[in-house]
Amino acid sequence: MQRVQALRKQFPMLSRLTFLNAGTDGPVATAARDAATAALAAQFDEPRWTADFETRLAEQAALRDRYARLLGCSADDVALTTSTSEGLGKVLNGMGLRTGDEVLTGEDEHPGLIGPLLAARERGVTIRTAPLAQIASAITASTTLVACSHVSWITGELADPALANTDVPVVYDGAQSAGAIPVDVAALGCAAYTGSGQKWLCGADGSGMLYLAPGFRDRVHALGASYSAFARTDAGLKSPLHTNARRHDTVALGRETVAMSLAAFDVLDGAGWNDVHARGPALGARLAEALAERGFRVAPRDATTLVAWEDPDPVAASARLVAQGIIVRDLPGTSFLRASTGAWNDEEDLERLLAAL
Amino acid sequence: MQRVQALRKQFPMLSRLTFLNAGTDGPVATAARDAATAALAAQFDEPRWTADFETRLAEQAALRDRYARLLGCSADDVALTTSTSEGLGKVLNGMGLRTGDEVLTGEDEHPGLIGPLLAARERGVTIRTAPLAQIASAITASTTLVACSHVSWITGELADPALANTDVPVVYDGAQSAGAIPVDVAALGCAAYTGSGQKWLCGADGSGMLYLAPGFRDRVHALGASYSAFARTDAGLKSPLHTNARRHDTVALGRETVAMSLAAFDVLDGAGWNDVHARGPALGARLAEALAERGFRVAPRDATTLVAWEDPDPVAASARLVAQGIIVRDLPGTSFLRASTGAWNDEEDLERLLAAL
Repeated sequence: MQRVQALRKQFPMLSRLTFLNAGTDGPVATAARDAATAALAAQFDEPRWTADFETRLAEQAALRDRYARLLGCSADDVALTTSTSEGLGKVLNGMGLRTGDEVLTGEDEHPGLIGPLLAARERGVTIRTAPLAQIASAITASTTLVACSHVSWITGELADPALANTDVPVVYDGAQSAGAIPVDVAALGCAAYTGSGQKWLCGADGSGMLYLAPGFRDRVHALGASYSAFARTDAGLKSPLHTNARRHDTVALGRETVAMSLAAFDVLDGAGWNDVHARGPALGARLAEALAERGFRVAPRDATTLVAWEDPDPVAASARLVAQGIIVRDLPGTSFLRASTGAWNDEEDLERLLAAL
Repeated sequence: MQRVQALRKQFPMLSRLTFLNAGTDGPVATAARDAATAALAAQFDEPRWTADFETRLAEQAALRDRYARLLGCSADDVALTTSTSEGLGKVLNGMGLRTGDEVLTGEDEHPGLIGPLLAARERGVTIRTAPLAQIASAITASTTLVACSHVSWITGELADPALANTDVPVVYDGAQSAGAIPVDVAALGCAAYTGSGQKWLCGADGSGMLYLAPGFRDRVHALGASYSAFARTDAGLKSPLHTNARRHDTVALGRETVAMSLAAFDVLDGAGWNDVHARGPALGARLAEALAERGFRVAPRDATTLVAWEDPDPVAASARLVAQGIIVRDLPGTSFLRASTGAWNDEEDLERLLAAL
């Protein structure tokens, strides 16, 4: 309990608010704000990239290392991106899918995956949907790729675990799993995994990760590249790209963005990932149970950090709750309110939400 | 002269350094740092996107409006990106080029354009090069697209003005022109123009613009999209994308990134774009002349803000100059040192550089 209090103190917002919306954007820790502010001050004092070239490369390498550790893979397999959605776009467009290819996806995917799916459909690719929890059984001989949530942003359901055993490459939208629940890309057996830096990892808006399995890397062309993605930049059209996932790095990451994401990661690292990964889902389970006891219809879910329940007017309800300092959200086009539970939450957060419903 | 001093005072770095490298990254103004720091503080105090949803949308709209004004177009024709390179990738990949298509490009393009050209070549597209200043005369019946610098990042040369009269769509890499020289996308007659927020506009790393001509917009598929690019986000695979350039908006822009870029733009706006666009090129011309008088071989250039000259060991020379507080750069794979002149520079900056050579 003391450890929870120590973690909570690093996010002063939590003393005033019942913060239950890391599924949109995590809370900002003092250390994260301070690191970003210092990175801004450094750019103000000394010329950007000239004075801090090595520092920037080192900070980017450090962030890549941390993401790799979180996912249980080599840093060679991780590209730095600005968002989960950017990573999904890179994979789905970089594969050169065309007429005759079929992508199987979940029934309630996030706009960040819908976007690249629409782009693929415009190129003649067939997009087929199936329920996320049974999606592996919908794979046929025509399926080129499965692209779906690891954890549903609507319900908190996990993708079908049987996906680990399919021969078809699987690309995960991990926006609601990276930092929220344990993720082991090798155990998942996925071809690619994309995650957000700003949600459960509490980093900057505009940070994220793209994991590409070594055996899948050659299937994904780099659609763009600039300085950091080239192994040499002095040979024009003969310039070689890095052979590892770094060729997919986003071109422009602000130093404040990287510094903020690094510092935020280290706050959670300090709390211990075992604890972080245990507490968030445990609180989610407790909230789901308490809601069901009170007669709310909770959406089917798994051991994750999202809890969704039906409300006759979720837009009005979320506005009312937010006005009371209870930060939850509605989900467009659904009858659900959604709460996100993180390691920084405590029982009192849940009680305040339940009392206000 | 008083006006120059007033502008210089807004960039305290300029009192200590001879800053001549906006072609990499512009100097950071006090107002830009303060705006970014305040945006960070706001995220720390109140939940991101919940408390500041409308503020963020308004700030993004304001930045889009300013970029549109700079380029002389409607805000409907401008997408917010993280970099020039990202915009180039969006256009070159979004056009669905394939075997049989030919892209004509300059001989010394930047890695940010080389990247998408390599990607196009991997899909079977022919890439042909020609000298930037005469590139229009290299267009043939086989040319699908011209993609080239507006201002060469190596020499400061302008692209062939005859490109305004070709029927082949032209996509400009405007990294060295947006904010540096007057840009009128209608007069350029281009299909697309991409620019950087962090160079001559002194905004945040991770900011930029993509202009798409209304008549060209339908040729470019949105390769990714997330919340902000959808006109509605409640209809899954039936969700419509915005019909204007906003469908190409980058997914994740940090509030500090937008705030910093907005504030930086307004510093230059306050100085007056006529003055800004006159002073930078005038100083560039003066520097080129002075270098030539002293016997340096200056690369062929136009009325732009870049000046490159030969040096027997440009890597060592730039390191030596930077150590003296004179911020210039070498250009990988060339024999050139390069200086960037902006409206914030003065004659003394040029004299200090010349004295140190």
